[in-house]
Amino acid sequence: MIYFHSDYGQGAHPKVLDAICSTNLEYTDGYGLDPHCERAASIIKDLIGISDCEVHFFIGGTPCNVTLISAALRPYEAVIAARTGHAYVHETGGVEATGHRVVTEDGVNGKLTPELIAKAYTEYQDEHTVIPRLVYLSQSSEIGTIYSKTELTAIRQKCDELGLLLYVDGARLGAALTCKANDLNIRELAALCDAFYIGGTKNGALFGEALVVKNPSVNDHFRWMMKRQAGILAKGRLLGVQFEALLEGGENSLYYEIASHANKLAEKLRSGLSALGVEFLGNSPTNQVFPIFPESVAAKLHEDFFFYDWAAAENGMQPVRLVTSWGTKEEEVDAFLAASKTFLS
Amino acid sequence: MIYFHSDYGQGAHPKVLDAICSTNLEYTDGYGLDPHCERAASIIKDLIGISDCEVHFFIGGTPCNVTLISAALRPYEAVIAARTGHAYVHETGGVEATGHRVVTEDGVNGKLTPELIAKAYTEYQDEHTVIPRLVYLSQSSEIGTIYSKTELTAIRQKCDELGLLLYVDGARLGAALTCKANDLNIRELAALCDAFYIGGTKNGALFGEALVVKNPSVNDHFRWMMKRQAGILAKGRLLGVQFEALLEGGENSLYYEIASHANKLAEKLRSGLSALGVEFLGNSPTNQVFPIFPESVAAKLHEDFFFYDWAAAENGMQPVRLVTSWGTKEEEVDAFLAASKTFLS
Amino acid sequence: MIYFHSDYGQGAHPKVLDAICSTNLEYTDGYGLDPHCERAASIIKDLIGISDCEVHFFIGGTPCNVTLISAALRPYEAVIAARTGHAYVHETGGVEATGHRVVTEDGVNGKLTPELIAKAYTEYQDEHTVIPRLVYLSQSSEIGTIYSKTELTAIRQKCDELGLLLYVDGARLGAALTCKANDLNIRELAALCDAFYIGGTKNGALFGEALVVKNPSVNDHFRWMMKRQAGILAKGRLLGVQFEALLEGGENSLYYEIASHANKLAEKLRSGLSALGVEFLGNSPTNQVFPIFPESVAAKLHEDFFFYDWAAAENGMQPVRLVTSWGTKEEEVDAFLAASKTFLS
Amino acid sequence: MIYFHSDYGQGAHPKVLDAICSTNLEYTDGYGLDPHCERAASIIKDLIGISDCEVHFFIGGTPCNVTLISAALRPYEAVIAARTGHAYVHETGGVEATGHRVVTEDGVNGKLTPELIAKAYTEYQDEHTVIPRLVYLSQSSEIGTIYSKTELTAIRQKCDELGLLLYVDGARLGAALTCKANDLNIRELAALCDAFYIGGTKNGALFGEALVVKNPSVNDHFRWMMKRQAGILAKGRLLGVQFEALLEGGENSLYYEIASHANKLAEKLRSGLSALGVEFLGNSPTNQVFPIFPESVAAKLHEDFFFYDWAAAENGMQPVRLVTSWGTKEEEVDAFLAASKTFLS
Repeated sequence: MIYFHSDYGQGAHPKVLDAICSTNLEYTDGYGLDPHCERAASIIKDLIGISDCEVHFFIGGTPCNVTLISAALRPYEAVIAARTGHAYVHETGGVEATGHRVVTEDGVNGKLTPELIAKAYTEYQDEHTVIPRLVYLSQSSEIGTIYSKTELTAIRQKCDELGLLLYVDGARLGAALTCKANDLNIRELAALCDAFYIGGTKNGALFGEALVVKNPSVNDHFRWMMKRQAGILAKGRLLGVQFEALLEGGENSLYYEIASHANKLAEKLRSGLSALGVEFLGNSPTNQVFPIFPESVAAKLHEDFFFYDWAAAENGMQPVRLVTSWGTKEEEVDAFLAASKTFLS
Repeated sequence: MIYFHSDYGQGAHPKVLDAICSTNLEYTDGYGLDPHCERAASIIKDLIGISDCEVHFFIGGTPCNVTLISAALRPYEAVIAARTGHAYVHETGGVEATGHRVVTEDGVNGKLTPELIAKAYTEYQDEHTVIPRLVYLSQSSEIGTIYSKTELTAIRQKCDELGLLLYVDGARLGAALTCKANDLNIRELAALCDAFYIGGTKNGALFGEALVVKNPSVNDHFRWMMKRQAGILAKGRLLGVQFEALLEGGENSLYYEIASHANKLAEKLRSGLSALGVEFLGNSPTNQVFPIFPESVAAKLHEDFFFYDWAAAENGMQPVRLVTSWGTKEEEVDAFLAASKTFLS
Repeated sequence: MIYFHSDYGQGAHPKVLDAICSTNLEYTDGYGLDPHCERAASIIKDLIGISDCEVHFFIGGTPCNVTLISAALRPYEAVIAARTGHAYVHETGGVEATGHRVVTEDGVNGKLTPELIAKAYTEYQDEHTVIPRLVYLSQSSEIGTIYSKTELTAIRQKCDELGLLLYVDGARLGAALTCKANDLNIRELAALCDAFYIGGTKNGALFGEALVVKNPSVNDHFRWMMKRQAGILAKGRLLGVQFEALLEGGENSLYYEIASHANKLAEKLRSGLSALGVEFLGNSPTNQVFPIFPESVAAKLHEDFFFYDWAAAENGMQPVRLVTSWGTKEEEVDAFLAASKTFLS
Repeated sequence: MIYFHSDYGQGAHPKVLDAICSTNLEYTDGYGLDPHCERAASIIKDLIGISDCEVHFFIGGTPCNVTLISAALRPYEAVIAARTGHAYVHETGGVEATGHRVVTEDGVNGKLTPELIAKAYTEYQDEHTVIPRLVYLSQSSEIGTIYSKTELTAIRQKCDELGLLLYVDGARLGAALTCKANDLNIRELAALCDAFYIGGTKNGALFGEALVVKNPSVNDHFRWMMKRQAGILAKGRLLGVQFEALLEGGENSLYYEIASHANKLAEKLRSGLSALGVEFLGNSPTNQVFPIFPESVAAKLHEDFFFYDWAAAENGMQPVRLVTSWGTKEEEVDAFLAASKTFLS
């Protein structure tokens, strides 16, 4: 069986695992108060070119999103998100569990726009309504699309106009940063938002997300919020160790290399399938590919390849999702293309 | 100044106030554990023809909605509501404050449909998603429209199919029950839903809503939920006393009389304005009327009449809202129609 | 039957009810945005000698406590209270429902001390612990005792030292202000705390508490917090109207007169019973009296008088609670004393 | 520097790390739905001799405690815990963040008793009070003490009498199970409680706790509660892999071996120091040792050994805490004893 079902189906990239093993016997303080977390934070600050910020490490995207949001908002304030946004649709109401609403709008290609943000903001009128205060978006989005520099700049301007915080979920930030279509580097991204995280789990870590928070009032007592939300790892240095391994070297780091590898193979899938006449759902330029196969072809492919159907079949055509990762091998992609060619012909 | 701005702009209907005054010196236990609440509950059970239910009294619709919803749902469960629903849009996130999401759909004429409920329900997939469990709707709706017997029956069937509870916010239930277009009496309504409330605040009470809950698992320890949500009134008998005064006599009670009066005057406004060529937003058959005036006419009317603009003006036309109540006098309606005629000609 | 079971067993003082009746047909805006609330707030500011504060009206003590506390604290902050404090013991976890801990200490005569506050504060150590941030106490306390000027000043000093807010629950503030033992007037009280409320429900109102908040950061968007906690009354002017009636005239107002009346009759009970050799639980100087009767005497008294046993009987002796109010008549007190004399002899 | 500061200062026991490494390239489903978690759960069910239960894996004790408690309780229900209990004192109000109170009593040797539970339960009276519903205790306790079979049986009886659930925090369960003083094996423990967890983080895992829940109503939709509380790890199989490595072999497993090793060295510290005339705080028989040194001796020891002062010094005597773990070497213990001997003489 060859796997294209997710970018977190295996463990860690071997170099990340090596770093965990080689530091295993060290004694450190717990809870992220250790030299590895300190150094990883320093590497991140250098990478984004901002020293006046805090870096907080989490074991996953959900605790990271929930903690950031609940630390940033007063009780009557709300989040604005695309209806497909992870924090809305795939976290079992974790945001609402902290007392905050997520005001949703149907996105465009999985993305928010200044107009949609303005529309959501009209929910705010007076003391009988919540006040949207934070825009949540993902780079890359749930369906693999990315915000261009122009698009994110326009969103930032809208946020400034309405007094909104801008938070970027970077679960697949590596995929966004290294795809061919991208024109927004991490320094520019960091400059445009109030907080964002660099996702490790889906880009080579065993687990781990590095949250960067620029806003001092959000950083105030942030570790209390982390602990209250059950989001501090006892052996916190495991997070620091992994991000050292991933990000040492900045834009030449393992993190970028892993993401580029996954994107390159996704691109090969895309162009190979396209050459076979296959069409796609949406226009993801990153490590998620959404081809639409005849149902019978999808069924045959499922026999040797593990991947998920993405939406209900319509008119005999089945949209599926293929995801590449650090562990995907070029021959696996070739095998998929060959099989597709066979079944489609 | 003549007032059409709301149905809670004055105090109580004089007969309700009389009841409060005439019982003022009685000594009773507090918190709703008194003979008046007991008797009012009994009157309500007779009126709806259901003895196997509980009646809980609240001082307003928001505490009533929030308590019912938080008592009915497990933490990961959610509400389905129209985006215009009061519990979503005008309670400052009170539902989310108890940890529950409100999944919204744009309503049709301010109303949910079985199709919209089914669409919202697709949000439920697995342990990464909330489970919509309770449908919230208002009779009459925020924009004065009402559910027909056919419509509510279809919604009930959809709820049964999906395992959903059905809760009806009756802040303006009187207006719905007594309007000419209505074909759904209170016994039928009560039979179709799991819980609903009979709104007093907007139909002649100083304050007060009588919540009927049929579902035993929701009634379990309900008074603990009421107190936890700060929703028990110390001198709770005030609620019982008012509902005795309002509902004694069932469908011949003061409650029905008050609502009929308001509807009749709303109808007169509607037909009078219609005769003047005025058009309306939506098709409310109840005590809320939404005429659309030329902006200049609206401005002149505002000088002698107090009412609210309902939406932004478009193309020089201003939608406004007129609300009638127990205290509205026929001559006030006549004055409004006369002024409209003058300004429009 | 003669009633000594509570100070909220009847409706409102007739003058308060008159005010409700005489304003019944007025049209005003809802939600407390009306001239009566405005005027009542102004009367209160004059009475306490502080203009730089906000007055918020609630229908009861529980919503008042919960809203103030949740508005004042960040999520990881906690309340310090006596274990007998109402917000801890009689609000079904309403404070915890907003996510905040109540750190408790056994009080001394129902009261906190600087030492107990300091002890509770040691719970705060680092990001693994909550941070106590607000001291909650009641004047008079649950068992009728009062804080002297010296005591409350010492608590204020401890609060300043530890960076704590001081909030006084004044459900029975009238009883405290007007009892013979009191040396702390309302101006001094207001000056010493960050927020407090003037309780109406237990001193002549149908319902209503007037919360005074001095701290600007707590007042920020306070009405959003009120609505989110379901604490805004639709016909809010009812609260303003009642406090106008109660507090017009300041220290010569009906509010003081009612409380004095209740205290005077409580004092008569106390001295009369004392003369009969009866002993008391605690040393309440206010409108709650806690005599300890032989069980057989208590049983006989229960036949003609309605009051509550306060604690379990021990060694044949039954502590009970007698409460006086605006509606208590001197002859009722005389009757109780006479019966006690008979049964005790 | 030699470390006695905690049992989570290093990474994982090498055999646990080996298991992570050797399974690193496997492809599995995420979120704990994989063969390793399934097999680890099966091993646990065999070990405890109960097949009719569910095993849920968490990355730490705090998310485990918070999720279990919030899944087990209705909103108005509360936890009973010792004031020193971890869920009360070291989780920054995580339980209250889910809306539940922790009713505390001062423990006896860090432990609850049936009498203390009964005392806490008196907080429940009527709808104005929370209902304590779950007893939280730790085996071993925060200060290293353990419940005997007799003690836990008596607590279970009290729980049955009062209708309470019994939940055991097993962060240091290994230390309890394998210490000389223990007479309560894991089958007996599992039989006595409704839920408990087998702590991995403090006994050789990189991270991980295995929660056993017997109560079907608590297991109902438990994974929804886990996700809502941000407690599901993406690469969940990491938890299964570690518990397979730790628990394979049951009472002859690595888990028991690691804990025995730590206990044996703690015992050596205890007896060695005792022979030097040192006295101890409390009577921990597990891997935490609390000697009391003269302040000058403690200061000298701090130069070569890393450990924490446990409480404020009194009369020149400083209580400290020494913790042993899988990584502690016998020569490190010998070195500590030798240094103590030198400094004490």
